[in-house]
Amino acid sequence: MTIEVIAVGGYEEIGKNMTAVKVNDDVVIFDMGIHLDRLHIHEDTDISRMHSLDLIERGVIPDDTLMREVDGKVRAIVCTHGHLDHIGAIAKLAHRYEAPIIATPYTLALIEKTIKSERKFKVNNPLQALNPGEKQQISPNLTLEFVRTTHSIPQTITAALHTPEGVVVYANDFKFDNHQMVSPPPDYRRFRELGKKGVKAAILDTTNIKEVQQSKTHSEKIARDLIKDVLKGPLDEKKGLIVTTFASHIERIQAITKIAERSRRKIMILGRSMERYCSLAQDMGILNLPRNVSLYGNSKAINKALARANDNRSKYMLIVTGHQGEPDALLPRIANNKTNFEIKPGDNVIFSASTIPNPINLANRNLLDRRLKERGARIYNNIHVSGHAGPEDMRDFIRMLQPEQLIPAHGDISHLSAFVELAEEEGYKLGNDVHVLRNGQAQVFN
Amino acid sequence: MTIEVIAVGGYEEIGKNMTAVKVNDDVVIFDMGIHLDRLHIHEDTDISRMHSLDLIERGVIPDDTLMREVDGKVRAIVCTHGHLDHIGAIAKLAHRYEAPIIATPYTLALIEKTIKSERKFKVNNPLQALNPGEKQQISPNLTLEFVRTTHSIPQTITAALHTPEGVVVYANDFKFDNHQMVSPPPDYRRFRELGKKGVKAAILDTTNIKEVQQSKTHSEKIARDLIKDVLKGPLDEKKGLIVTTFASHIERIQAITKIAERSRRKIMILGRSMERYCSLAQDMGILNLPRNVSLYGNSKAINKALARANDNRSKYMLIVTGHQGEPDALLPRIANNKTNFEIKPGDNVIFSASTIPNPINLANRNLLDRRLKERGARIYNNIHVSGHAGPEDMRDFIRMLQPEQLIPAHGDISHLSAFVELAEEEGYKLGNDVHVLRNGQAQVFN
Amino acid sequence: MTIEVIAVGGYEEIGKNMTAVKVNDDVVIFDMGIHLDRLHIHEDTDISRMHSLDLIERGVIPDDTLMREVDGKVRAIVCTHGHLDHIGAIAKLAHRYEAPIIATPYTLALIEKTIKSERKFKVNNPLQALNPGEKQQISPNLTLEFVRTTHSIPQTITAALHTPEGVVVYANDFKFDNHQMVSPPPDYRRFRELGKKGVKAAILDTTNIKEVQQSKTHSEKIARDLIKDVLKGPLDEKKGLIVTTFASHIERIQAITKIAERSRRKIMILGRSMERYCSLAQDMGILNLPRNVSLYGNSKAINKALARANDNRSKYMLIVTGHQGEPDALLPRIANNKTNFEIKPGDNVIFSASTIPNPINLANRNLLDRRLKERGARIYNNIHVSGHAGPEDMRDFIRMLQPEQLIPAHGDISHLSAFVELAEEEGYKLGNDVHVLRNGQAQVFN
Amino acid sequence: MTIEVIAVGGYEEIGKNMTAVKVNDDVVIFDMGIHLDRLHIHEDTDISRMHSLDLIERGVIPDDTLMREVDGKVRAIVCTHGHLDHIGAIAKLAHRYEAPIIATPYTLALIEKTIKSERKFKVNNPLQALNPGEKQQISPNLTLEFVRTTHSIPQTITAALHTPEGVVVYANDFKFDNHQMVSPPPDYRRFRELGKKGVKAAILDTTNIKEVQQSKTHSEKIARDLIKDVLKGPLDEKKGLIVTTFASHIERIQAITKIAERSRRKIMILGRSMERYCSLAQDMGILNLPRNVSLYGNSKAINKALARANDNRSKYMLIVTGHQGEPDALLPRIANNKTNFEIKPGDNVIFSASTIPNPINLANRNLLDRRLKERGARIYNNIHVSGHAGPEDMRDFIRMLQPEQLIPAHGDISHLSAFVELAEEEGYKLGNDVHVLRNGQAQVFN
Repeated sequence: MTIEVIAVGGYEEIGKNMTAVKVNDDVVIFDMGIHLDRLHIHEDTDISRMHSLDLIERGVIPDDTLMREVDGKVRAIVCTHGHLDHIGAIAKLAHRYEAPIIATPYTLALIEKTIKSERKFKVNNPLQALNPGEKQQISPNLTLEFVRTTHSIPQTITAALHTPEGVVVYANDFKFDNHQMVSPPPDYRRFRELGKKGVKAAILDTTNIKEVQQSKTHSEKIARDLIKDVLKGPLDEKKGLIVTTFASHIERIQAITKIAERSRRKIMILGRSMERYCSLAQDMGILNLPRNVSLYGNSKAINKALARANDNRSKYMLIVTGHQGEPDALLPRIANNKTNFEIKPGDNVIFSASTIPNPINLANRNLLDRRLKERGARIYNNIHVSGHAGPEDMRDFIRMLQPEQLIPAHGDISHLSAFVELAEEEGYKLGNDVHVLRNGQAQVFN
Repeated sequence: MTIEVIAVGGYEEIGKNMTAVKVNDDVVIFDMGIHLDRLHIHEDTDISRMHSLDLIERGVIPDDTLMREVDGKVRAIVCTHGHLDHIGAIAKLAHRYEAPIIATPYTLALIEKTIKSERKFKVNNPLQALNPGEKQQISPNLTLEFVRTTHSIPQTITAALHTPEGVVVYANDFKFDNHQMVSPPPDYRRFRELGKKGVKAAILDTTNIKEVQQSKTHSEKIARDLIKDVLKGPLDEKKGLIVTTFASHIERIQAITKIAERSRRKIMILGRSMERYCSLAQDMGILNLPRNVSLYGNSKAINKALARANDNRSKYMLIVTGHQGEPDALLPRIANNKTNFEIKPGDNVIFSASTIPNPINLANRNLLDRRLKERGARIYNNIHVSGHAGPEDMRDFIRMLQPEQLIPAHGDISHLSAFVELAEEEGYKLGNDVHVLRNGQAQVFN
Repeated sequence: MTIEVIAVGGYEEIGKNMTAVKVNDDVVIFDMGIHLDRLHIHEDTDISRMHSLDLIERGVIPDDTLMREVDGKVRAIVCTHGHLDHIGAIAKLAHRYEAPIIATPYTLALIEKTIKSERKFKVNNPLQALNPGEKQQISPNLTLEFVRTTHSIPQTITAALHTPEGVVVYANDFKFDNHQMVSPPPDYRRFRELGKKGVKAAILDTTNIKEVQQSKTHSEKIARDLIKDVLKGPLDEKKGLIVTTFASHIERIQAITKIAERSRRKIMILGRSMERYCSLAQDMGILNLPRNVSLYGNSKAINKALARANDNRSKYMLIVTGHQGEPDALLPRIANNKTNFEIKPGDNVIFSASTIPNPINLANRNLLDRRLKERGARIYNNIHVSGHAGPEDMRDFIRMLQPEQLIPAHGDISHLSAFVELAEEEGYKLGNDVHVLRNGQAQVFN
Repeated sequence: MTIEVIAVGGYEEIGKNMTAVKVNDDVVIFDMGIHLDRLHIHEDTDISRMHSLDLIERGVIPDDTLMREVDGKVRAIVCTHGHLDHIGAIAKLAHRYEAPIIATPYTLALIEKTIKSERKFKVNNPLQALNPGEKQQISPNLTLEFVRTTHSIPQTITAALHTPEGVVVYANDFKFDNHQMVSPPPDYRRFRELGKKGVKAAILDTTNIKEVQQSKTHSEKIARDLIKDVLKGPLDEKKGLIVTTFASHIERIQAITKIAERSRRKIMILGRSMERYCSLAQDMGILNLPRNVSLYGNSKAINKALARANDNRSKYMLIVTGHQGEPDALLPRIANNKTNFEIKPGDNVIFSASTIPNPINLANRNLLDRRLKERGARIYNNIHVSGHAGPEDMRDFIRMLQPEQLIPAHGDISHLSAFVELAEEEGYKLGNDVHVLRNGQAQVFN
């Protein structure tokens, strides 16, 4: 009986994650994500109407055409969490496989939304919810288990695929955070148990492997304390107050709203994607917004709300999209004077996010900052912690799982190579039991 | 008798240079440039139709409103060379002063063009040509001298203003290049003579002060040798061949065309600004293009030429604009498949330019490179030398001129401060005889 | 009546702080520090036996010879806190002035120690303790007030010198930390009162002005949370455990020992300077060490302790000097196998410090890390927060104090210039009311 | 018949190169170098007296113990050029193999010297000279060919091993330089012929793969032009003049001495290793020193020469060791005032070398520069071009050789991985026909 790990996407970039694991004749697909950066290259890309083959050619979604030559039956499409680089290609690719899509309830609800907004393809795969801590048999030989972990979106799981040859662990993405408000800590006990039971192979998120100055990723508790300290002044001043963060970062939005709850300001959460992620999380009982919070998702409502806030700026705190300076997001549009809210001298703008350092983002952020400053805003930058494990977290994970074989994922060759060096410190050896794959390559374990 | 140096623009940025020197009641203005970076902040800026006050407010041109309070008569507007950060605001500001514009013939011809394309203002100042090595009396007390120097555009001069109190030297921009094809070396002998005669104050270009790894700026001879080595293969291959460089860099274009002269390829110089700078330089006998070169400036002609080159790509070498990735320039449009020329696998693209490292350019260049590579092009990057003096050149200049007072210009506070450190190594002291000015500030010497 | 601020040291470097403030005929000196980096240039420098003039020539201590020409009477030498770059030159320079040394009790006790270990000079100046919150008249016209602030050593104060012309504030060094264990938060209320009363001039620590990614410096609370998270695993493992931090960072040592108090490990604090700072702080009731902590300062005791720890490594946690990789400090000596404690595979080494990024430190840390790793140690890096205010803290401070005049200190020209840009955002203008001084220069305010 | 490439050393670092190629039962070893950086970790390493096993354990020389398990007969030890990272372990390892050492005459002479200064081992392997362009049969099945190439030491060759399965090319180190004075250009024609004949595998030097700003490495012609421009002033001034460069860089020393030949200064080449490399090159007719040059190798002679130069500094130009700031080399000792030559204000020091950017060198260079500047020297930095091929040179080489299989060498995993990306642009694929090896790993080709 052989196990084969097929690197479909996310092995040459941070984005468009997709990995297939083949155990004899059964195949499980983990994640189907998109790579948003690639969209910049082609100006005319309206994803929702495009064919998957065009998107594949442009590098926007994983090239799963190689799956045709994989001789086996796909038993499940498993998504570990609701970020677009993990679920964003579902609507383009899933219909080709006769298999259910399995994810945690919140992730599943987000997948449903992407399927509904798709214009080109009809996705009819059954959607099956599985909770962290639960198992489900997906073929006579295979059982899928969802182990609780943490990341920057709720209900992220690490998948454990139980096979006759041992467990295959797919942990992409994850961080080890013991102090989140919305999500309980990772289930370290279970990881250790799996390690004892015997992990055949582990596929790990290496996004942050190069963060040597922050060898263990800081907890959201740190973010909360930073926000608390930074918000103190601005909440009391008689100035405008805008906070921007990731729309999907429910934990962070929970923290920000909680901290601002007792101030006199009303909180407006504004933006289409803000509304989508938050209202869903609220409906599902994940996000618990204080009473002084309102959500605005469609442009008319947003405009009205912004006009109100503009006239009475010391009475509101706005939580908006646009921290990367994306030209069509709300904060850049505000800074560019294209909304009803005008930045005035002394207004405070808090970036509860880091800039993902590709040249496009850096240029957009630079423009955004210059425009905000020109209008007199005060900027608080990088009030944030990462959602990806640092190198010492990865080392801890390796020690817990003691996998026979290691496959770094979610990075380009420089990330995967840096992981190899870490793994070798732990006794592995490149090509023997830690493997660098390129998109489209497979690794077979006997 | 007092001398006053008024920092109007270019003391808080690399761009929009303008300095006024007042000697008793006579004022001489040096340069009136624009700051192209500032255009990015406001999306709707059509310069040619805008009023100077709006452009001043947006930081695009120097704020010369302070000149109203300068109690003196402007005797001349002197431009040292034809780059837009030195002449680009002439059409917006010069009409406010009853004074001739004095420059070398090539610079003057370029100034004339900017005046003609202006839509808002009418500039009627007399245009007076002065050659390097010549002097002209501009008031009973003042004589202006143009001393030969080198830069990245022909007929750049260092201005020496002879006053009863000593010489005021304005050297912005300059490099010390002894091996250009088009321009003779700087007149070091004259600089030393001025030094002996007595230089009261020197205003110096500090753009490259931080280039510690290249303490003396490399000569164009180096660029020629690099181009020769790099072009060798591509000229012979049966592939497309595109070179991009600064349209105003006549010296470089001379070198490239000379090197490619004996190949079998026909050379097309393409682009509106390419045509403007080159045809003017050709008409004035500065640029001596080989017979196999053609110039195309209007879009119809460019399109036809590109179509020809596309069908027979091994027969042509294209020299085009767009090295900074500017979206509307020719190379980015080619890479984006918006012209008749399609990049094919194996085509060679040579950047005879460096990327000016602001975030917008870096993003544009990144996009351009990715698009070129996606189509299979091979890129040769940075086949280039700078046009600005390095720190050790500045030191040499200080030793030649031995100025009483030093005023660094053409940089933000970090450039000017770095120059202060160099000057202090040469015996000067901040505040005593080397001065950091902000835009709008003046320094008086008694 | 004029006020003159004389920049004696610390205006061209981070180090050797010394500023004199002259109010009519009265002079107050703030800080007399050394510049440890300069020692690297000369290999044979045994400070304790060297004459001040030699040390001045070598750039190790401030050049106070210019004070001879200051026409006034020195009324006090005021030290803001106990770091060597603020008190380290007292033993070399103070005896030249007939004036008391005024500082908080802990600072004063540290000053006494440096005076005692001096071999060349005899310092007999009276030592006068002043507590935070207290005032003392030091001449008919001048009253000195110590305002509570925070930094990375206890009992740091911001000095407010009340003069007939307004208050002169000297805040060098400081951070705004509201959550320290050992020290209460800064006295913001008093800062605002001073602002209302009228601050003539403020001299501010600019060390961290360039930290744009951390615009408000993180609190020690953050450091505590990081340490707690990082120490959890290592405390429980059966491996060696070493923590290194600044010997003078009593707050941090308090936090580390408190966190480890309930573990089964005994805590050894080891090293001569560790012992000096800690035992003093303990004696003065500032540091409250748990019962399972022992202090070892002389080499024999250290050796014995290390031998014990070596034999039973899972029973101890060592807190040692050497985080910058200084060859003679304890951790580098351990890593180099020059002590009784041998690093074994799996031992944990926690750096609760950042590397001060000069080339010597970077080389020393690199060597240290390679040696530790070669022996199998696991390294946790940068479990730390800074002790200096970030740019947005400085902005807050300016808004509280509303000083007429600003003088950035404790940095080279690049720090001071960056501060100018911040100050100009707040309405100041270089040369008018914010000033860049060089060592040896003075600024007069009328 | 199988070919096996065994990565012994230089696949996890820039240094200690050693690769074995096994063709059936015949083995050829390429290079036996040392890794000088590793010496810093252990302070007490006197190489000449140490056993190879100790040096292996310390990572200073390649771990060739794995060769015991290689089932074959070593037919030759081939060294490509005379740098220590290619020949420095010969004296420690070669005696274990019953095989001749084959190299070009200059390389061989340098190998002889290292053998003679060895204290621990006796190396009796026959030394066989082979000239560039020549072939030699080394076993019934194998013929070794030396193909002319260029680098930063004379007589560097690319080895071509002709096997029944095709050619194995070992090009480590190399650059493509068409304008050296001492060495003719690489034999591109022969490379293309080998490509046509069929290259089974190519092992390539990747040192400079990350130099994206200098995609083709600049020629020594560029270095000559830079030196000419920089030396002009200093040669004429009445000041001291010191040039420092690599002792083994005969080409550079030829260029410098040639440029300075017609000045009035006498040229002294000083330093033990300077003398070793230069006198050998001179004796063999490779280096052609002008008449005004003298060589000084032993310390007494050096001291006397320095004393002469000190008394009459405007009459001499010194060429010395120490460009990396190595504490025991001549220039750092001069800067530290430990010789008879004292740096005086205005003396010129020209670094015809770049700093190899590891933390130790950066610290040493920083110290050296500060000491030189403190004494008033003027420094010209980085008057240099590299000796290693840039990425576009590598691409050219791949296109000439068209190897079936590619193995990047001479770099850590980040270099090798970056090469993989280049190779993939040329149609290769990781694991299929381009391979990343770790020290101790082998790749078999059938």
